Amino acid sequence: MDKKISDKVIGRLTLYHCILSDFIKENIEFISSKQIATRLNIDDSQVRKDISLLNNSGKSRVGYIVKELKASIEKTLGFKKEKKAFIIGAGNLGSALAKYDNFMNYGLNILALFDNDKNKIGKIVNGKKILDIKELAKLKQELNADIAILTVPREYAQKTAEYLLSANIKYIWNFTPVVLEVPQDVQVWNENLMGNLLQFTYNI
Amino acid sequence: MDKKISDKVIGRLTLYHCILSDFIKENIEFISSKQIATRLNIDDSQVRKDISLLNNSGKSRVGYIVKELKASIEKTLGFKKEKKAFIIGAGNLGSALAKYDNFMNYGLNILALFDNDKNKIGKIVNGKKILDIKELAKLKQELNADIAILTVPREYAQKTAEYLLSANIKYIWNFTPVVLEVPQDVQVWNENLMGNLLQFTYNI
Repeated sequence: MDKKISDKVIGRLTLYHCILSDFIKENIEFISSKQIATRLNIDDSQVRKDISLLNNSGKSRVGYIVKELKASIEKTLGFKKEKKAFIIGAGNLGSALAKYDNFMNYGLNILALFDNDKNKIGKIVNGKKILDIKELAKLKQELNADIAILTVPREYAQKTAEYLLSANIKYIWNFTPVVLEVPQDVQVWNENLMGNLLQFTYNI
Repeated sequence: MDKKISDKVIGRLTLYHCILSDFIKENIEFISSKQIATRLNIDDSQVRKDISLLNNSGKSRVGYIVKELKASIEKTLGFKKEKKAFIIGAGNLGSALAKYDNFMNYGLNILALFDNDKNKIGKIVNGKKILDIKELAKLKQELNADIAILTVPREYAQKTAEYLLSANIKYIWNFTPVVLEVPQDVQVWNENLMGNLLQFTYNI
């Protein structure tokens, strides 16, 4: 990236990207900041400000050129940069994420799933094998995977995280409702579904 | 709630709540702002400031009383307030969410799943029935459900959202990667996994 872009802006740019993808499907060539803003219920000056952070040349008299704006967002946010990941825990959520092919559009390449359940090991989910968790360290090394997507039951979350650290995993995408204890050089992203739920349902 | 608490603070308070739940399991009676801060890799003055927004009386010389602080967060954020929901789309993700019993601790009561696939209708997921999507409007009315958790494939997202609106649903928790077009009085929470992924993997 050319400059540091804040998390909030990255979040909004990915939503703009979703809207642009829809417009392309509908063969619409131009889009205005107002059209994006209305869909997200935000101010159009915010949209223009966010887009000004991109190296986007696709501005015309009738609005942004949809394809070029989409490409600018992809370039700035690094969609094309491959990010290799393992899913740890081949339960319902792990399997659902393994089947989510949309990840590939964002550069996320899920190589395999891991579990300790003998009934699951060896099975295939969406073309990805479920492997024995004991193989993790070796395969992390061989395949150069960066990210562990943690979807184990909450009671195994911390113990599993420690095992991931011992395999030299530095990025944990945490789907469990446990706040993991990890060293400072390990990045954890808490997919805090409960926090989102409570924010969202505040007024119910 | 006594005062408006920002989304960021709500997000952090739910993470503190996760940590407090762990401490209770380990029978630890007191917790300091420093202990919470270290686990989340944030500043302890931030933790103290957030906690000061609660009506929390459980402060002692040796730190916060874990049980009382947990109860204060639950009270302030409305954990006990029942929020009734339907899952729309009984695929992998919908089923995974239906099996996520942790939701109940946060007041989310998932009443049923809905699908249009005759092979799925009638089946049971974690004690919740998969119903015909055609029944939605009637059951929304009868059961007084507020929230639709949208987990359909992306190509059906907008059309399904319009159907939800016609059934008078006002809260959509959107797990699809589509930015929905809805009227202003409808609340949509975009579970923007891709945005999170890109923020999190920024430095890879």
